[in-house]
Amino acid sequence: MHKTMMAVIAETDQPLKLGEVPRPDCGPEEVLIEIQASGLNRADLVQRQGFYPPPAGASDIMGLECSGVIAEVGSAVREWQVGDRVCALLAGGGYAEYTAVHHGSLFAIPDGMSFEEAAALPEVMMTVWANIFDRCALRPGETLLVHGGTSGIGTMAIQMAKYFGAGKIIISAGSDEKCAAATALGADVAINYREADFVEVVQAEGGADVILDMVGADYVQRNITAAKIGGRICNIAYMSGHKVELNLMPLMRKRLILTGTTLRARPIEDKQRIRDAVLAGFWGGVKTGAIKPVIDTVYPYDQADAAQAHLSNGGHIGKILLSRAQS
Amino acid sequence: MHKTMMAVIAETDQPLKLGEVPRPDCGPEEVLIEIQASGLNRADLVQRQGFYPPPAGASDIMGLECSGVIAEVGSAVREWQVGDRVCALLAGGGYAEYTAVHHGSLFAIPDGMSFEEAAALPEVMMTVWANIFDRCALRPGETLLVHGGTSGIGTMAIQMAKYFGAGKIIISAGSDEKCAAATALGADVAINYREADFVEVVQAEGGADVILDMVGADYVQRNITAAKIGGRICNIAYMSGHKVELNLMPLMRKRLILTGTTLRARPIEDKQRIRDAVLAGFWGGVKTGAIKPVIDTVYPYDQADAAQAHLSNGGHIGKILLSRAQS
Repeated sequence: MHKTMMAVIAETDQPLKLGEVPRPDCGPEEVLIEIQASGLNRADLVQRQGFYPPPAGASDIMGLECSGVIAEVGSAVREWQVGDRVCALLAGGGYAEYTAVHHGSLFAIPDGMSFEEAAALPEVMMTVWANIFDRCALRPGETLLVHGGTSGIGTMAIQMAKYFGAGKIIISAGSDEKCAAATALGADVAINYREADFVEVVQAEGGADVILDMVGADYVQRNITAAKIGGRICNIAYMSGHKVELNLMPLMRKRLILTGTTLRARPIEDKQRIRDAVLAGFWGGVKTGAIKPVIDTVYPYDQADAAQAHLSNGGHIGKILLSRAQS
Repeated sequence: MHKTMMAVIAETDQPLKLGEVPRPDCGPEEVLIEIQASGLNRADLVQRQGFYPPPAGASDIMGLECSGVIAEVGSAVREWQVGDRVCALLAGGGYAEYTAVHHGSLFAIPDGMSFEEAAALPEVMMTVWANIFDRCALRPGETLLVHGGTSGIGTMAIQMAKYFGAGKIIISAGSDEKCAAATALGADVAINYREADFVEVVQAEGGADVILDMVGADYVQRNITAAKIGGRICNIAYMSGHKVELNLMPLMRKRLILTGTTLRARPIEDKQRIRDAVLAGFWGGVKTGAIKPVIDTVYPYDQADAAQAHLSNGGHIGKILLSRAQS
């Protein structure tokens, strides 16, 4: 008989609730993690609405990152042992008691870091690296513009760019309080988009070499205007819309790159490459505290619904988490 | 008193004509070329219409490439001598008897190659390298799609991609005759876009890793559809329009790059870098004849008007040139 576990269950038009489901098997290349905390991501909301189905073979339980303790190690896995404290990027299955994940998506939790802090790291650090540093190849001294500067991604992008040696970090956010939080994290210029036109501010700062955007819609053209010659613009979501009318002439004239990526659908090997790059370039900063997870609120698993509503409403600064320690 | 020279003069709503103008001075980093032949480019037509003004400091005479003999060498130039047979990328000034150009934009004409053949090379080879190989980083074995497969750019893109080791070269063109010419040059698949939907054909071939486009308009979305995961789409013009309605979701989902470049406005150092890369990677192929300029028609300078009309009408295969040898 299959072992079971508790997990957050999403049923159409119903509030999220805890329920009993089969515990996942641990494949030969995987480890089974007994989860202690889970990070929320905006993709969870989209998945719940039915627009972001899990990739083939992934759990249909929500949750793209977690922390916990290894409970079982696959037969082909050499680098990890039962009892190791880890956090991991997941293709799904994070809102649960156990999850199985490929060994290449794991990070060892640094000494002294809590499970909650650790659960806030994998998705944002890997997303920031894959987009700002890999796809957009930010160079030391360049200017970075990050929209949603106090989102989970935004707060991590500021810190990783600072740690890397970006020349100038500009963010946009929706309130003076958020702008102050971003500045405290290391942003050089914080634009309250309700009060200023980000294009004008960024142009007055000399333009942006790299722009990380999750807004889409009319921001796409405005990003093109705000970019320097040779600039790279990367979308990790199109929250305000993915159908846009564009004048592409400045894309060619300024030799820009317009791109976008998602993390979840990538092959395992690609995720491992990104994990390795985060470890090599930025994990040292996590260990010393130069790069810190920014946590807004931690909810118990039986309040996943409230946690998602909080994320959806958008008043948060940093990550929203689920944690057993709160139950 | 300033020396003078003959040049093709463009006046508003008048046919092109030959006229006497001041001969350009040779700057310390430049050479003065006595021109023998000049390549036509579509940008010349746009410049004549007033939409593509020369960059600051460039000649207002049309013409972005030429071949000839060095008549004067700037005081800081060591690599070139009076009497050298050269071809060159120009920021303007090619439709004339003399032009001054930075030494980093020069190529030595291989033994046995005519001035006319040589005049057909600089713009297309540097454009193909800058877009397909530099910006889009075509890798050996990948599939390349080139629209306008029998244009000057197209005929060179096919040959350079073949020489490099592209896996599959797909082109689109507007007639069976053009498709046959492209196949003869090395294209693996040639699509007559008047008879087939290029998106369907390219998808049946497994999709494109790199797409070089000069059409724009509805081709932009169709290129996005035809691209493989991780594909790169580069526009060097938007002949059918640069204002487009786009669904960007597949750009993100497939992790595509949408980009574009121009050559003329780049800094001198960047042009020199591109020239050096063409020399290092492809000039050997020019010397052996593996890469050949494809020439459609050569006109005398006093028929520049007819030459441009021919280019504008679009029936050509390969380059249209002006040459003194025809006068």
